[in-house]
Amino acid sequence: MGKFDNLLNQCKFDDRGLISAVAQDHLTGEVLMLAWMNREALEQTLQRRVACYWSRSRGKLWVKGETSGHFQKVKEVLIDCDQDAVVLRIEQTGGACHTGYRSCFYRRVEEDGGLTVTGEKVFEEGEVYGKP
Amino acid sequence: MGKFDNLLNQCKFDDRGLISAVAQDHLTGEVLMLAWMNREALEQTLQRRVACYWSRSRGKLWVKGETSGHFQKVKEVLIDCDQDAVVLRIEQTGGACHTGYRSCFYRRVEEDGGLTVTGEKVFEEGEVYGKP
Repeated sequence: MGKFDNLLNQCKFDDRGLISAVAQDHLTGEVLMLAWMNREALEQTLQRRVACYWSRSRGKLWVKGETSGHFQKVKEVLIDCDQDAVVLRIEQTGGACHTGYRSCFYRRVEEDGGLTVTGEKVFEEGEVYGKP
Repeated sequence: MGKFDNLLNQCKFDDRGLISAVAQDHLTGEVLMLAWMNREALEQTLQRRVACYWSRSRGKLWVKGETSGHFQKVKEVLIDCDQDAVVLRIEQTGGACHTGYRSCFYRRVEEDGGLTVTGEKVFEEGEVYGKP
């Protein structure tokens, strides 16, 4: 029996077998992304201290950074009252967002309904993920 | 046509008609809760500047604080790259968690798999929600 089995058994994975995971910069508190974890992704994250998610679009386990090099070193994991969501307090290499912004939440909704880019661009998408 | 219709039309509500919403203290960055919004909840939140969610358990619109008095005043709304999640930067009255903690994420997962309460208790559950 693994040391995280008790915790994993208590987690309330939904009908797709998933919980939500919020990644937050451990120093600034900036919310960087929201993603999904199945049981294996959460166990890997806890064991390796590197964020690992479940990619719904690709249908596979996804170590964040495996393509881009933009790994997330896990400093702290918090779990919510319902045990169906976690917060990862992380150290982000590069940017969390595939668009090149540090955070996926790089746009503010203004009171008139418009969007303003408020996030910091930290890399060029084409240079990291490659483009044909 | 409402001033948020363009934005709402671009949002990618899932097959249940929902997006994820992360509420975060606007001053400290503490993640307080994760909840769900349908189109109406997001529109109400943007218009009234008070957090309004969709309660999956009760199947209805839910102005956070309507029972407890623990409203969330919305200071800023951020939207993610995929337009299926928002971050609300809020001023929280009382606590966000129904258990009496300021944040739903009040427990840390330790490296040995144990849980440590690290959150701040700000009210007694029975005094706020009532108990028979």
